[in-house]
Amino acid sequence: MSIGTSSIAAVAGEAGHEAEVAALAAGFTQAWNRHDMDALANLFAADADFVNVVGMWWRTREEIKAAHAHSHTTFFRDSRLAGEVRRVKFLEPNVATVHVVWELSGQMEPDGSVGEPRQGILLFVAVRRDGRWVVEAAQNTDVLAGALTRPAERS
Amino acid sequence: MSIGTSSIAAVAGEAGHEAEVAALAAGFTQAWNRHDMDALANLFAADADFVNVVGMWWRTREEIKAAHAHSHTTFFRDSRLAGEVRRVKFLEPNVATVHVVWELSGQMEPDGSVGEPRQGILLFVAVRRDGRWVVEAAQNTDVLAGALTRPAERS
Repeated sequence: MSIGTSSIAAVAGEAGHEAEVAALAAGFTQAWNRHDMDALANLFAADADFVNVVGMWWRTREEIKAAHAHSHTTFFRDSRLAGEVRRVKFLEPNVATVHVVWELSGQMEPDGSVGEPRQGILLFVAVRRDGRWVVEAAQNTDVLAGALTRPAERS
Repeated sequence: MSIGTSSIAAVAGEAGHEAEVAALAAGFTQAWNRHDMDALANLFAADADFVNVVGMWWRTREEIKAAHAHSHTTFFRDSRLAGEVRRVKFLEPNVATVHVVWELSGQMEPDGSVGEPRQGILLFVAVRRDGRWVVEAAQNTDVLAGALTRPAERS
């Protein structure tokens, strides 16, 4: 592929696919709020990676589905996720990163109380395969307001 | 590009480039431990995104460099980072995700004491441009052992 062809393809990809890529993020939020694990899993490639906010690392679509099925029948059962796509960046015509800033409310705490809303940033790495965008990697990080880094444990 | 050509290129990319992609992670660790901000910044594309462990989001190489320059003259001044590449996955011949499991020791706490080692997972999204791999997106998450998700604040 020549540089010229690549550049043209990149422009066409960005023009035609930004909405489709952003729709992955909307699909994740909708699946979360309906607690629809089939719809949630369907957003991911079979070998997708997902690192959650406490560093649990799921390495396949099935692991991602099973983990969310557990949390959505327990501490996320009545939770509601709101997400906003803040940046879509095409790395190639068929590969994009998507940064979603989110707020989660209604999480059940270990003592059974309802926690205050939490905020975070979710990165999706999306790939277009067979005409359809899927998530190949996701990583989630809580926003801890006022902190520059996480305090370590003290000895 | 035909499907056949793409498949051949993908195989050649994986065979020839996995070491180069993994070297990005090694370069990050080495630059961190030398507190060499030029070397660290040089790993990133000009418009790279970096989300740190507390959800600070830097959106350019210059912002990434400035933030690390601050932390490496203060709370990370005597810190040491050890990283291990656990998965390199080629999404296209010239795009790969890299998962690095890390441990950080020697971090200075707000009260001036030295914290216990912290562990986390750092995702790099790497792209090959002009024959050279650079990081287009990085996201970092602490591993909180024993937790399934982060507790929210209580009202």
